[in-house]
Amino acid sequence: MSYDSDNIFAKILRGEIPSEKLYEDESTYVFMDIMPRADGHCLVIPKTPCRNMLDASPEQLTACLVTVQKMGHAVMQAFGAEGVTVQQFNEAAGGQEVFHLHYHVLPRHDGVKLRPPGTMADFAVLKDQADKIRAVLG
Amino acid sequence: MSYDSDNIFAKILRGEIPSEKLYEDESTYVFMDIMPRADGHCLVIPKTPCRNMLDASPEQLTACLVTVQKMGHAVMQAFGAEGVTVQQFNEAAGGQEVFHLHYHVLPRHDGVKLRPPGTMADFAVLKDQADKIRAVLG
Repeated sequence: MSYDSDNIFAKILRGEIPSEKLYEDESTYVFMDIMPRADGHCLVIPKTPCRNMLDASPEQLTACLVTVQKMGHAVMQAFGAEGVTVQQFNEAAGGQEVFHLHYHVLPRHDGVKLRPPGTMADFAVLKDQADKIRAVLG
Repeated sequence: MSYDSDNIFAKILRGEIPSEKLYEDESTYVFMDIMPRADGHCLVIPKTPCRNMLDASPEQLTACLVTVQKMGHAVMQAFGAEGVTVQQFNEAAGGQEVFHLHYHVLPRHDGVKLRPPGTMADFAVLKDQADKIRAVLG
């Protein structure tokens, strides 16, 4: 399996298509999922190419996980959540739809299920939620 | 939130209760989930205490992720799977049931959904599946 540099996350990283950016550092980039399964659902990706976890370097995995942890704390604080679910899908059979490594970070509240996948967000609502997260990150 | 050293994964690490062990290295331990949501569903945990991702050290996260990657390849090969799903739950609201950091590694086949949670495995079947994974790991 190879890396296709025309995937939408590669285009986001190149600035060719917009994203609701929350955070970036030298190695990772974080933005809102446009089909959120919970309020504050965001995606952590490495800035360098890899298809998924199966071909990622230890450096890419480490950089992503440190940022996933940071975003876990941030979304919990921003949304008053009591927990966080992290999901990471590899290949189509594993649930992957965009073939650039990404970690889903989902703030969770007691007794509230994840929404079914596939519904596009209202972009004004998404921006408002992103503002809350950015405010926590400072 | 603090770490309770009487959690069942801590007891597994201390050898106080049995597990179907697949792999271990200096920092991580891997065993079969006894309520598997897919054939070959296994769990990667750090050997040192932490409650979940939220209080994990960068070293614990890195060690786990390198082993998660190794196990992803191994379970795909052992079960002829086309993909892998990785899940990691933090706090009860986030889906966590045992409060020692763990990553679920689930081999996936095209078009086959995960089984619903909560059904105990047949232990003879679990051992047979573990044998297949151990054979791949060599």
